[in-house]
Amino acid sequence: MLKIAVIPGDGIGKEVTDQGLKVMEYLNGKNGLQLTLDKFELGAERYLKNGEVLPEKVLKKLETYNSIYLGAVGDPRVPAGVLEQGILLKLRFYFDQYVNLRPVKLFKDDFSPLKNKGVNDIDFTVIRENTEGLYAGVGGFLKKNTPDEVAIQEMVNTRKGVDRVIKYAFEYALKYGKEPKVTLCDKSNVLTYAHNLWQRAFKDIAVTYPRVETDHFLVDAITMKMVRNPEIFDVIVTCNMFGDIITDLGAELQGGMGLAVSGNINPDSVSMFEPVHGSAPDIAGQNKANPLAAILAVGMMLKHLGYSNLGDRVEKAVEQALKENQVTPDMGGNLSTDEVGNYIVTLLKQDR
Amino acid sequence: MLKIAVIPGDGIGKEVTDQGLKVMEYLNGKNGLQLTLDKFELGAERYLKNGEVLPEKVLKKLETYNSIYLGAVGDPRVPAGVLEQGILLKLRFYFDQYVNLRPVKLFKDDFSPLKNKGVNDIDFTVIRENTEGLYAGVGGFLKKNTPDEVAIQEMVNTRKGVDRVIKYAFEYALKYGKEPKVTLCDKSNVLTYAHNLWQRAFKDIAVTYPRVETDHFLVDAITMKMVRNPEIFDVIVTCNMFGDIITDLGAELQGGMGLAVSGNINPDSVSMFEPVHGSAPDIAGQNKANPLAAILAVGMMLKHLGYSNLGDRVEKAVEQALKENQVTPDMGGNLSTDEVGNYIVTLLKQDR
Ligand SMILES: CC(C)[C@H](C(=O)O)[C@@H](O)C(=O)O
Ligand SMILES: CC(C)[C@H](C(=O)O)[C@@H](O)C(=O)O
Repeated sequence: MLKIAVIPGDGIGKEVTDQGLKVMEYLNGKNGLQLTLDKFELGAERYLKNGEVLPEKVLKKLETYNSIYLGAVGDPRVPAGVLEQGILLKLRFYFDQYVNLRPVKLFKDDFSPLKNKGVNDIDFTVIRENTEGLYAGVGGFLKKNTPDEVAIQEMVNTRKGVDRVIKYAFEYALKYGKEPKVTLCDKSNVLTYAHNLWQRAFKDIAVTYPRVETDHFLVDAITMKMVRNPEIFDVIVTCNMFGDIITDLGAELQGGMGLAVSGNINPDSVSMFEPVHGSAPDIAGQNKANPLAAILAVGMMLKHLGYSNLGDRVEKAVEQALKENQVTPDMGGNLSTDEVGNYIVTLLKQDR
Repeated sequence: MLKIAVIPGDGIGKEVTDQGLKVMEYLNGKNGLQLTLDKFELGAERYLKNGEVLPEKVLKKLETYNSIYLGAVGDPRVPAGVLEQGILLKLRFYFDQYVNLRPVKLFKDDFSPLKNKGVNDIDFTVIRENTEGLYAGVGGFLKKNTPDEVAIQEMVNTRKGVDRVIKYAFEYALKYGKEPKVTLCDKSNVLTYAHNLWQRAFKDIAVTYPRVETDHFLVDAITMKMVRNPEIFDVIVTCNMFGDIITDLGAELQGGMGLAVSGNINPDSVSMFEPVHGSAPDIAGQNKANPLAAILAVGMMLKHLGYSNLGDRVEKAVEQALKENQVTPDMGGNLSTDEVGNYIVTLLKQDR
């Protein structure tokens, strides 16, 4: 029995996770999958009601789950950052989800923003370190609010933290890679402390994976390369901050947030899966949000939980719906959120 | 009389600055421009001969110049980083060149890597802070080379350093902007120290420029927006590290390094102008490198020195050469490096 904690969150988060839930409910019982699905009300409503963001007792309860399925957090009535930091970043750090897994996959040539680059060119995975670096929250002010103010933000890396994510990248490449190849993205020519550690860790680990090719790009150069020759990438591993940046660029190469999925993974603890898009308050509650990324997040979660076959089926159903234009208007179709979810279930039923 | 220090540097740096020199020599005496051009041999040759990268006496001498015109540094025989840090970064810091000016301008629709985005869409300027942030060189190791190693790199911002570059951005927008509008790019939702200072500085300065519109993007979101809607940008101001990343992405939107120019500016000291491309040792000495970025760097330098009219003429000549395909093969023509330089001078002669 696998226990899944569902956090719909804010705005369209609720509508799109409802479609993911339909998919999970349909697959429940198939291929030996046994799911229990429990909803957790976190987000703007709870915060506005009683000031709670993510109470300790909820965190404790979440520890008993196998995975978290998250919609989106963020609401114009709540100060920017409160929910993102208090829920999303908090969960990443609390469960030490040290891998952020971000596939960059173009599903349809039409969606590519690039001339001459299609589905065969845009298909790689970014493995972002997810618990340290510039996200450590370490820093401070000197003489705050004076003309002499100094503000310091520390990029903190540990050998242990860097080693484990690089190892994950190599293992991932062996399992799912194309060539397989792992590309390190850093700024080691300038960040002579933090990224010197990355360089050494990468070299030491690379030699233990002789079957995996390696490559290296500086972060500035990689943004150019992602636009010019995305086809050269297989698995990219990078630090928290650079990963944040290049995965969003990657999402745009896929055609935008509509199909971008994020896994926050700790193989030994509770992992969390989410569509990359936000809560989009402007279209919330109108049954017109695109649920495909949320559905793909279910696919990624099932793979992570050991149900690769079911995960693949979910991904194939999404591809099929896109091919048939049985999707929301932003993806070129004219279905509602609900109808897309229902259609995916129909496709899954056909593909037994 | 304006004194220009010319540092051709390594690889194609020499060939391309030679074309820039032709342009300057032709313009010398026009519109009251009086230039003295002196060459400085810095780069791999000097380093390999006597271990010197940028001796103190050369720095002192450079203080007496109005501007530096740099080709490119970097050579496979020299350990990576030595020349980049010892010359390029050293000059930026020594002369406190706190503005990195990077226009992103598409000259020809064909060069755009983006579907449906042409010369009217890709035309904005990035103002990158160039002397602090993650480039401060502050940091260290704890327990280096052990499994318990911690590596720290500090992003250090000062109110003074941030204020002056933001002010420069607003002044630049007033002078050259389209709308005018200044967009702040940061990661203030996570970098709650360093980029909190940026937020406050930006707000305080913005109110003093009521005629300039303002906008804000997080760095991850801006990479998406640059690909999806580059037309919304006018002037973007950002920190050193993010500027490094988004300006290279910007260069790719222009069609790559072939036309990307960089100004390292301190209005009260010695500024430095360079093509963004590297030394390209693989094609060095073959008279086939594209000199247009080096020539555009001359244009930017002339504008900075107060000869806007001459700077515009250089830019227009480059546009004309592109239109007529009188360019190197990488730009779609079949001229040599030399021939392009000569052709630009011919165009300048016609346009009197
Ligand atoms: C919401 C924000 C804090 C988060 C991040 O910066 O990591 C987001 O951009 C992401 O990539 O998941
Ligand atoms: C060569 C390198 C140190 C430099 C930088 O990182 O600033 C370069 O990428 C640039 O943008 O001018």
